[in-house]
Amino acid sequence: MMRNLLLTISFDGTNYHGWQVQGNAVTVQQTLQDALEKICSNRDNIVGCSRTDAGVHANMYCCNMRTESTIDCQRLVGGLNAILPRDIAALDCKEVDFDFHARYDCKSKEYIYKIWNSPNKNPFIFNHSLHYKYPLDEKFLSEQAKAFIGTHHFDSFCAAGSSVEDTERTVVNAAVEREGDTVIFRVEADGFLYNMVRIMAGTLIDISRGKIPADSIEQIIEARNRSAAGYTAPARGLFLNKIHY
Amino acid sequence: MMRNLLLTISFDGTNYHGWQVQGNAVTVQQTLQDALEKICSNRDNIVGCSRTDAGVHANMYCCNMRTESTIDCQRLVGGLNAILPRDIAALDCKEVDFDFHARYDCKSKEYIYKIWNSPNKNPFIFNHSLHYKYPLDEKFLSEQAKAFIGTHHFDSFCAAGSSVEDTERTVVNAAVEREGDTVIFRVEADGFLYNMVRIMAGTLIDISRGKIPADSIEQIIEARNRSAAGYTAPARGLFLNKIHY
Repeated sequence: MMRNLLLTISFDGTNYHGWQVQGNAVTVQQTLQDALEKICSNRDNIVGCSRTDAGVHANMYCCNMRTESTIDCQRLVGGLNAILPRDIAALDCKEVDFDFHARYDCKSKEYIYKIWNSPNKNPFIFNHSLHYKYPLDEKFLSEQAKAFIGTHHFDSFCAAGSSVEDTERTVVNAAVEREGDTVIFRVEADGFLYNMVRIMAGTLIDISRGKIPADSIEQIIEARNRSAAGYTAPARGLFLNKIHY
Repeated sequence: MMRNLLLTISFDGTNYHGWQVQGNAVTVQQTLQDALEKICSNRDNIVGCSRTDAGVHANMYCCNMRTESTIDCQRLVGGLNAILPRDIAALDCKEVDFDFHARYDCKSKEYIYKIWNSPNKNPFIFNHSLHYKYPLDEKFLSEQAKAFIGTHHFDSFCAAGSSVEDTERTVVNAAVEREGDTVIFRVEADGFLYNMVRIMAGTLIDISRGKIPADSIEQIIEARNRSAAGYTAPARGLFLNKIHY
């Protein structure tokens, strides 16, 4: 009997060309599918909740697979963790309705963007954060980020050349917090355009250094023009953090 | 005028074949020397406080260089951080007595060995810790580790094949602590034999899983035989943590 399994994983994206299977690059989906084929002879594609860029990480990533395998969910998690490389972890597996779809049924996603905010270089987190040397005022930036909240056309925060037609998204939360020397930009929305969080993070940094005036995010959104926003912060600071179904 | 500069750095050793310059492998010393040549035309070898194995990290590593360069110490640190790759950080530089030697003048060193002690895989720290799934009792292990303290011949904790003649070392502190899911073995000594901390860490794990009886470290030391001790824990959990002059 066909079952539909919802798999939750986390991964360090440093050594992967994103989630999606590609011709001849190592991707998370391909690595996971290879492991699933070994464990339960599953040869079908699995459905991911989101594409992610090369170098982007996930504290939580969901995907579903339809399979005839009768393997117990707990055993599948254990088998995956034994076979998968050390930078991909299986966290959970459960059976879901047959028509559940990891991408279409996603109600909202939360991303975080991590900035190592210290004059000192930290050699241990260079793949997991952006290093920004000058002081960031997280309370000021959190106020600025509130302007992202709401239903807007986010063309200004979409990589030039993206072919998406409907650019309207609803941001339900956006805030900046500090944990020691790490400043975290957190944003939750019903969906994201290509590079949206990285351009939001770059815009907040550009506001902090005075390259973009304070209190201008509303106008940047209204401009519906990529060149109105700030730079695209590098992939290595970005983590898909939570998926809500 | 020749000056003698004491440089303090930290590095993620994942991508290096240890400290020491080698024929055709990338090492921390070589990378640092290449950067110093660019910044202040220094072509002489620098003297490190210790050899480290491939994959071993350093929160603090000291080295000294004799140079005719008149560069200001602060500018040297800034220049190094701009030129060095992201996994090596310059922390400090100061002028020292001309006869100061980073290795010979070292009074003691502290290493820490990090164990990710959780049933869950953590994809973000796989290069910076050993994953051990079963519960570790840090208080019990700390009691066990106390037997390392004192002046002993540590042949049992030295990699077979090492050519060192005098195997006597004085361990001034050895303890195990826990920070959340991370268990840390900390050991300070006037010097260490080849693989000494990794064999100590492996022995503590072997005691924890009952492969080596509790309260036997004293006898293992007395045996003066590598095969009496536990396994060699992998390099990736090991950090040179402090250097005392």
